[in-house]
Amino acid sequence: MIPSSLISKKRDGNNLSKEEISWLISSFLEGKVSDAQMASFLMTIFYQGMNDDELFSLVETMVKSGSTLKFNNSKDFIADKHSTGGIGDKISLILVPILASLNIKIPMIAGRALAFTGGTIDKLESIPGYKAAQSLKNLKKLVHENNCAIIAQSNEICPADKKLYKLRDLTGTIPSNPLICSSIMSKKISEGINSLVLDIKVGNGAFIKNLKDGETLALLMKKIGNYFNLKTEIVFSSMDQPLGNYAGLSCEIHESMNVLSDNGPNDLLDLTYKLGSKILIQAKKVDNYDEAKQLQKSVLKNGKALKKFEDMIQNQGGDLDKFIKKRKPHFEKNILAKNDGIVKNFNTEKIGWSLVELGCGYKYKNSILDYSAGIQFLKKIGDSVRKGEVIYRIFNSNEKKLDIASKHLKNTFALHNKKSNFRLILNEL
Amino acid sequence: MIPSSLISKKRDGNNLSKEEISWLISSFLEGKVSDAQMASFLMTIFYQGMNDDELFSLVETMVKSGSTLKFNNSKDFIADKHSTGGIGDKISLILVPILASLNIKIPMIAGRALAFTGGTIDKLESIPGYKAAQSLKNLKKLVHENNCAIIAQSNEICPADKKLYKLRDLTGTIPSNPLICSSIMSKKISEGINSLVLDIKVGNGAFIKNLKDGETLALLMKKIGNYFNLKTEIVFSSMDQPLGNYAGLSCEIHESMNVLSDNGPNDLLDLTYKLGSKILIQAKKVDNYDEAKQLQKSVLKNGKALKKFEDMIQNQGGDLDKFIKKRKPHFEKNILAKNDGIVKNFNTEKIGWSLVELGCGYKYKNSILDYSAGIQFLKKIGDSVRKGEVIYRIFNSNEKKLDIASKHLKNTFALHNKKSNFRLILNEL
Repeated sequence: MIPSSLISKKRDGNNLSKEEISWLISSFLEGKVSDAQMASFLMTIFYQGMNDDELFSLVETMVKSGSTLKFNNSKDFIADKHSTGGIGDKISLILVPILASLNIKIPMIAGRALAFTGGTIDKLESIPGYKAAQSLKNLKKLVHENNCAIIAQSNEICPADKKLYKLRDLTGTIPSNPLICSSIMSKKISEGINSLVLDIKVGNGAFIKNLKDGETLALLMKKIGNYFNLKTEIVFSSMDQPLGNYAGLSCEIHESMNVLSDNGPNDLLDLTYKLGSKILIQAKKVDNYDEAKQLQKSVLKNGKALKKFEDMIQNQGGDLDKFIKKRKPHFEKNILAKNDGIVKNFNTEKIGWSLVELGCGYKYKNSILDYSAGIQFLKKIGDSVRKGEVIYRIFNSNEKKLDIASKHLKNTFALHNKKSNFRLILNEL
Repeated sequence: MIPSSLISKKRDGNNLSKEEISWLISSFLEGKVSDAQMASFLMTIFYQGMNDDELFSLVETMVKSGSTLKFNNSKDFIADKHSTGGIGDKISLILVPILASLNIKIPMIAGRALAFTGGTIDKLESIPGYKAAQSLKNLKKLVHENNCAIIAQSNEICPADKKLYKLRDLTGTIPSNPLICSSIMSKKISEGINSLVLDIKVGNGAFIKNLKDGETLALLMKKIGNYFNLKTEIVFSSMDQPLGNYAGLSCEIHESMNVLSDNGPNDLLDLTYKLGSKILIQAKKVDNYDEAKQLQKSVLKNGKALKKFEDMIQNQGGDLDKFIKKRKPHFEKNILAKNDGIVKNFNTEKIGWSLVELGCGYKYKNSILDYSAGIQFLKKIGDSVRKGEVIYRIFNSNEKKLDIASKHLKNTFALHNKKSNFRLILNEL
């Protein structure tokens, strides 16, 4: 096959065969199809999309490019959760131990901060000693012993996706639904799970700005899940304001542990229960949402979920005693309201970029993260505010970066004199 | 500037500024923008096109990436002709000496065989000793002394175009009007000419299959010419059958010399006169087509055009005595008509691919050409044919290739029992 003729075929709106897709991706991984040829091919996909057969071939080739996990005990229910990325979204850190303490097995492969959104792995790495890089053999062992583990993307799983993603990031080919879906789903399929719940973030602090686009993406994810026999449930949740009361690195670990100690804010609990219910119903542990909520509440109350979290951290080398003593920010600053009013809205993406400035994300490829950095959100949409009251408390260990971030943050909220409405859970599929 | 954000901007249909286009192309030439980033950017241009300002910036950056010719004597009229490529198209070899013998200066930078079309430089290199690679300094000297020279693309002229073209060839980004036009026009602008005539080939043996597409391309060429103060005239000519009675390598040199000896077929003469008239009127040597035709005829009759050709070849190191003795094909074969009839049409592109098989083009990147190879066309559209008469005489020096080509050629013409019409010159602009 000739790469340029396959590119031209797709470019002109024709569909490629399973063999052609598979050959292109495999040859790219082997270096026979160049980065330049793959980049122009990815751009044709941005414009022309992919039909179902093409998409399934792409996912299959990506899965087959690496190893897949296989769990031997057929009685085990193995599940995972994935979010499309937001600000203050620490649900994985809460939901994984909850479900694991209810005997669901979760071999989670999580991501790092991307653009203005936070990364689960970066947050976990604020715990001294935590080892996110684990072999698949070890992942299997960790899940066997403790029901859960959260690891970083490994070279063993979907190396084709890893190479493609790096190229997409540099060539303007990230925002393409077939490419987004194949990247997410190939990794989840490789985990050998029975059930997946996807939290599709929608709003001004998410990559997906409106529900309609989210639904298009969701249907594609479900279609792939269906084809590969992976039951995929979707929850659409609002990212029009940060989730929980903290966003950052170690502060999100602290907040997660508070939630696991049955002492968390409502939005985190509501979304956790909703996402958890999808898995628990799938696993036939409960019949409906209310039962699932009660079951999850019970492991927060009896301490089992927190214990599961602590064991997971310990099993992956993390030292929570050291963590609780360390990681204190050296500087902090309050952002105040200039008037009385009711919080109307947030510019959540800008809050996310301020977090990057503070040291919680990758401003440059090799940025070094500041694990002490973060923001506390003292007000949410609909809250009454008095002039001079604190809206955000921001903190990190680099005063210059703190100043820059504080300037950005001053213009990230608006007050008005009316009632404000905010709905966290927008839809489910 | 960040390459991926410029790519994304163009991808989403926004226009880039002059500075952005110029930065992207210059950085690509310096290696700061990768092949992959440029390839995906070129694919966005395929889909989104370019507005006039973007196109002009692209051409300007390509021109400025290399040297430009400057002719000192302002009384000189400096011109060039370019064809978009066809089969048997040897007009440059005839028109250049005709115009040069009429005191028009022509510093022609010509191309090689591309896909199924022939290349002027490949044909000239069938003359022993002919040196197509010349420095710009030498090109200027040759034109100063003999009014004309035909050289191959040099690294001194538009290196950005050279690097871009190579990438486009591999990444499915050849057929994009702004990319085609900028590639052609940047080189012509760099030649420092006053006037350009473009022969846009249209038909089943051309890259452009219909007149409407040709006209769109032509208007873009004229627009660029206008902006860069290069008077650009357009002739649209049919490539629904090969031009002249021969296509190949040395055989086209022979046929050109026959035309220059006032002994050529009408189609070659008609198109030469038409294209030549555009330049001669521009140069104010004549007032109209009829005068231009007479003037051109005169230098064919008095031998001046042939002498100019011989001098040009000699000045570039070519040995026509040796050429006339050598380059005889070792094998030949006739393709015969199976019925009586009138020639209805040719599959001209397939004839072109048969020429590649015979050894006249680049089947692979490093194919070695067979200068003795070619086809004689004994019948043209509208000619009466008797069963058993010769349609094509094909020849080369590799019997196996001759057999392959002869099989292809059998299905490249159709006969019928009606009158056939063929119009060579389709339109002008």
